[in-house]
Amino acid sequence: MSLVAFVQASNCSVYSGSWRHPESMDDYLKPEFYQRIARTLEDGCFDMMFFDDRLSMPDMFGGDYRETIANGVRAVKMDPVAPLMAMAAVTQHLGLGCTYSTTYYEPFHVARLFATMDLMTKGRIAWNIVTSVNDSEAENMGRVEHMEHDLRYDRADEFLEVVLGHWDSWEDDALIIDKANGLFADPDKVHKLAHKGRWFQSKGPLAVPRSPQGSPVLLQAGGSGRGMRFASQWSDLVFTLYMNHEAGRKQYKTYRDAVAAAGRDPNTIKIAPAIRVVVANSEAEAKEKYNFIDSLAKPIDTLALLCELLNVDFSKFPFDEPLSNEVMAGLSMQTLRDQVVQKSGKSNPTPRDFVELSGRGTLREGPTFVGTPKQVADEMEAWFLDACDGFVMYGTHVPGCYEDIVRLLVPELQRRGLFRKKYPGTTLRQTLGLARPEPREWRNRKRI
Amino acid sequence: MSLVAFVQASNCSVYSGSWRHPESMDDYLKPEFYQRIARTLEDGCFDMMFFDDRLSMPDMFGGDYRETIANGVRAVKMDPVAPLMAMAAVTQHLGLGCTYSTTYYEPFHVARLFATMDLMTKGRIAWNIVTSVNDSEAENMGRVEHMEHDLRYDRADEFLEVVLGHWDSWEDDALIIDKANGLFADPDKVHKLAHKGRWFQSKGPLAVPRSPQGSPVLLQAGGSGRGMRFASQWSDLVFTLYMNHEAGRKQYKTYRDAVAAAGRDPNTIKIAPAIRVVVANSEAEAKEKYNFIDSLAKPIDTLALLCELLNVDFSKFPFDEPLSNEVMAGLSMQTLRDQVVQKSGKSNPTPRDFVELSGRGTLREGPTFVGTPKQVADEMEAWFLDACDGFVMYGTHVPGCYEDIVRLLVPELQRRGLFRKKYPGTTLRQTLGLARPEPREWRNRKRI
Repeated sequence: MSLVAFVQASNCSVYSGSWRHPESMDDYLKPEFYQRIARTLEDGCFDMMFFDDRLSMPDMFGGDYRETIANGVRAVKMDPVAPLMAMAAVTQHLGLGCTYSTTYYEPFHVARLFATMDLMTKGRIAWNIVTSVNDSEAENMGRVEHMEHDLRYDRADEFLEVVLGHWDSWEDDALIIDKANGLFADPDKVHKLAHKGRWFQSKGPLAVPRSPQGSPVLLQAGGSGRGMRFASQWSDLVFTLYMNHEAGRKQYKTYRDAVAAAGRDPNTIKIAPAIRVVVANSEAEAKEKYNFIDSLAKPIDTLALLCELLNVDFSKFPFDEPLSNEVMAGLSMQTLRDQVVQKSGKSNPTPRDFVELSGRGTLREGPTFVGTPKQVADEMEAWFLDACDGFVMYGTHVPGCYEDIVRLLVPELQRRGLFRKKYPGTTLRQTLGLARPEPREWRNRKRI
Repeated sequence: MSLVAFVQASNCSVYSGSWRHPESMDDYLKPEFYQRIARTLEDGCFDMMFFDDRLSMPDMFGGDYRETIANGVRAVKMDPVAPLMAMAAVTQHLGLGCTYSTTYYEPFHVARLFATMDLMTKGRIAWNIVTSVNDSEAENMGRVEHMEHDLRYDRADEFLEVVLGHWDSWEDDALIIDKANGLFADPDKVHKLAHKGRWFQSKGPLAVPRSPQGSPVLLQAGGSGRGMRFASQWSDLVFTLYMNHEAGRKQYKTYRDAVAAAGRDPNTIKIAPAIRVVVANSEAEAKEKYNFIDSLAKPIDTLALLCELLNVDFSKFPFDEPLSNEVMAGLSMQTLRDQVVQKSGKSNPTPRDFVELSGRGTLREGPTFVGTPKQVADEMEAWFLDACDGFVMYGTHVPGCYEDIVRLLVPELQRRGLFRKKYPGTTLRQTLGLARPEPREWRNRKRI
């Protein structure tokens, strides 16, 4: 079983109310905050953590950021690279992932940055690949509006070809370093890419030799049809969302079939759904903790985040009237839209439906396992048996939730033989049980 | 006196032959290499170090990278952010600078990245602002050719307006963090930029509060007329090249006059020329060390680097024939071109003139002070009296050269009262004696 922590370089976790928890630490602008989390996760033998990212402050609700600032709804969002490297400095095994958008960056930059981080962490880096979803980000990054959904994935496909192509620049034994004869490396073992495509041109070779794990692990969360095809083709680790165990069993099979259709062995990738865990020594205590955490949420948290994800200003529409077909068709994150359509049974849900049924930014957004270590481990074990290869664990309050998981839940998983007691090697690929990538293997994958 | 180390995330220092030195360490792909340098520099109370950058491997000589790879002429060039953060983790006072190009990145990205690094280092970050010079970089970053010289600086001016504008997003006391009442920050103290210019559009606000030093220190090395005007308007620390003490005295005055013309107090910025130091316990030993280091250079080192800097393939022209007016006019780095014209006394120098008179990538490129601690300190003291505020120290072999400087030279400078024995505070601005920047002060500066 793989355990992955989903961490934010922010004043709050994915749960926006988390900063209001009295036990949440307030030093999220200092490296110690992230280093404390990293040490805890490594003590618990977590496979990895990764940072999400967003290139803007939420400011679509009402066309302003005042509510965001006042209520601390993801008001702080730092570049994830610097806190990640601070965590690297105090750990030796923990995998470290970082989101970077294929919509706003150049693939040469991403290839070089992640290859360098992978060397500086001795092979512990993952790249969480995203396409960016809203106008706020576009307006910060010099574009007038964001890119249409499927087009973003076409661009992302080509982006991946360039990045993986650059990561193939140096063969493993290219370096010679014969000082006496002045021979540094073998020119026959360094290759340029000379990519010229629809979106990108990039020549190479990358001036960064290969890392101990070959190249960074690829992580992706595409949930829509087009996004799933993208993830099946490229990902080492797929991060997904199941509404419940039953739905998860089906999605797991769908994903594995898609991976096989792309010409890859489904056993060589990991599929991990997002969960929240509230664990305590007694069931009553766990429920009490859950209820307290849940009480920290405010409606504005959900409204502000939904506007960002769907690229719409909900303040413009009556709260209890159905959204028009035109508005529905323009919503940016299709997975989220479709979930609300399905749950409400309406083709045109109201803004209230979106707030109440998505539960975005609250504990009701996805599965939350609440109980004793035994109860939570039972649920995880059941899912693990037929619906997933591991879990992406969302934070409820930080660092407390990770400390609870490592102190209470991990020992129970270890006792059952479901989870490691020590790391098997040094690189993230070794931890995840993934093979070191063969150069240019990715060129044989099929587009599905 | 300020001491600044110029460090490369590369297999070699600015001196390409450095990797051939038997004492150069070969672990430049690991964080320990950079951490060792950082600890040495902090032991020596250096103000800061900074990384240069180049978004390509040298491949213009002969239109190929084979010679570069075989001879190790800057064949490795990693993204500087990750090694910089590795150095941050093992130091508490040393300033840490990093080059990022205004030609290929988005200002919102640079503003956010550097603001985040500044928080994660508690106020120790500097940004070395460059405009990028050659086609190889353009071809990696998706452009067909690089931008014309003065246009690059016009774009850079607007880039700085956006970056500094974003750094003014949060007032120092904007954060409230009242958990009980759910009040995170004061919306009246967070400002958006809404920049729409010729090159960039960027809205803001930046989702990164202000750091302990207000905002990162700005470092710039523009040597041409247009570059000097740019540096005078924006820099906190100007990194320059003097051919000798006499020329330096004049340049120092020219720079300070330019800073005053931009409406700034020349005493609020630092001007530091580049030097190399070879220091030993006896003059004879120092000379022997110098001669040995010098013997490691190969002509291909200079040729490969000149082609990159001037954006020309010298393999196309006869080595001893004058370059045409057309070729001369197209050379990219004007400062370098003008130095060779001046030194050769020819308006159309030959490729050999460029190699021999520039000495690029060798010890003859600029001033090298060779001798005992007393002899080197005498030269530095003389320059410091009337021609500079400190020095940018190039590496000859790494980490040996920094260890020699810290063990032998720094104590002599300290004994004379020229250099600090301990750090005066915690931020880089405190170390440099620069005021914490007032929000929006930069808007009052004059374009010159």
